[in-house]
Amino acid sequence: MPVDPNAKIEITAFAWVPSFAQGFVRDLRPRWACEEIGLAYAERLLEVDPRPAAYFLEQPWGQVPALKDDGVCLFESGAILLHLAEKDERLLPRDPQGRASTISWLFAAYNSVEPMMFELGNVDIFARGEEWAKLRRPSLMEFAGQRLDRLADALEGRDYLAGPFTIADIAMATVLREAGDTDLVSSRPALAAYRARCLGRPAFKRALDAQLAVFAANQPEGEAA
Amino acid sequence: MPVDPNAKIEITAFAWVPSFAQGFVRDLRPRWACEEIGLAYAERLLEVDPRPAAYFLEQPWGQVPALKDDGVCLFESGAILLHLAEKDERLLPRDPQGRASTISWLFAAYNSVEPMMFELGNVDIFARGEEWAKLRRPSLMEFAGQRLDRLADALEGRDYLAGPFTIADIAMATVLREAGDTDLVSSRPALAAYRARCLGRPAFKRALDAQLAVFAANQPEGEAA
Repeated sequence: MPVDPNAKIEITAFAWVPSFAQGFVRDLRPRWACEEIGLAYAERLLEVDPRPAAYFLEQPWGQVPALKDDGVCLFESGAILLHLAEKDERLLPRDPQGRASTISWLFAAYNSVEPMMFELGNVDIFARGEEWAKLRRPSLMEFAGQRLDRLADALEGRDYLAGPFTIADIAMATVLREAGDTDLVSSRPALAAYRARCLGRPAFKRALDAQLAVFAANQPEGEAA
Repeated sequence: MPVDPNAKIEITAFAWVPSFAQGFVRDLRPRWACEEIGLAYAERLLEVDPRPAAYFLEQPWGQVPALKDDGVCLFESGAILLHLAEKDERLLPRDPQGRASTISWLFAAYNSVEPMMFELGNVDIFARGEEWAKLRRPSLMEFAGQRLDRLADALEGRDYLAGPFTIADIAMATVLREAGDTDLVSSRPALAAYRARCLGRPAFKRALDAQLAVFAANQPEGEAA
C-alpha cells in the first residue's frame, strides 16, 4: 500500500465523515491513481467540521483533496489526477492521440457527466423530501439518461474510454459510482459492465480500503459508524 | 483575426443557433485562446438541428467545440484549452507552480463553478415557469453565492486566478458570464471587476465577434436574429 507518512507527495483527506459520505470523498481518486502505479503518498488529515480556516488558502472551498508534491501545490481532483498521470504512462498514454483522448474524457467526466450526479445527489440526498426535488427528479433522470446512452455508445467495442486504462477511467468510474441506487447505470449493460470493470481493479479496492481505514481509526465516540 | 480556412487547427462551431444562445456557445473559449496568442484556426460549421450523425463519433454528445490539430482529435472545451495552452506560455505559465495553479483553477471553473451555472440555466431559461424551478431557485442561488464568495476571496489582491492571465481565466470568466441577469456576480465587486477585466481584453471581443459573424452569415430566413 503506497500510504507512507514520509512520502514526498502529500494528499489531504478528512479524518472522519458521516457514513453516507464514507467511501465517496474525492481523495479516493488520487489514492486510486497512486495505487495503480505504486506511487507513495502521505495523508494529511483534516477535521471536516469546522474546516481549519487556513486550509481555505490552499483549497478555495475547503474541500479535499489538495496535493503537495515537492513544494508544488494543487487542488481539484481532476488537476491532481492529471499531475500524477504525467509521471507514468500507465495513467496517461504518451502518444499524442492517446493523450488527447484521455484528457478529453477526463474533462467529459468532470464537466459533462458529474454535474448531473451533483444534482442527483441534491435531489436524492440533501433535499430529499422537498417538493422541488420530487418535481425535478423525472426531468433530471431523463437528461442524465440521454447523456449516459451516448456514453454507453462511445464505450462500444472497448474496455476503457481512451483505449488502455487511464485517469479518465478513474474519473468516469467514480462519477458513475455516484449514481448510487438509481438504475441510471444498472439499466445500461455496457455502462454497468464498464463500471464493474473499473471498480474491479485491485488498485481501486486498495484505495477505497485506505480511505475507509482512516475513518475507522477516527470514529468519534457516540457517532454511528 | 486568426480565422483562416487553411489553418492546421480546425475548431467545430454551429452555423447558427437561436438568439438566446448566440455569443454563449462554447467554441467561444478556444476562439478566445487562439486570439490571445494569434494562433490561426479554421472553422468547421455544423447544423445544430439535426446534428450530423457522424459527428457523435467525434463528440459523444454532439456538442461543440471539437478540435483537430495535425491529425489529433480532442473534445470538451477544457481539454481543448489545455491543448492550445501547451503551445504558448502566455496561456499557461511554464514554471511548475504557475502550471499547477492554472490547471487547478481550470478544473475549478469546470467542476466547482460551472455546474451551478448549468442548473441556473435550467431554472431560469429551460424550465422557466415550472413549479420545481421556482421552488429550487432560492437554495441554488444561496449555494452558488457561497461558492462565489470564496472565489472572490481567492481573487483578493490579484488580477487573475493564477497570477498572469491564463486559460483558467478564459474558463472562469466565460463561466461567470453564464450568471447572466442574476446579481450573483454583480453583487460581488471583486468578482464583477474580475469578470470585466477578463471580458475587456481585446482578444475576447475578437473571439465573440468571430462567433457572432458566423451566425449573422447563416441567419435562416424567417427566424428572429
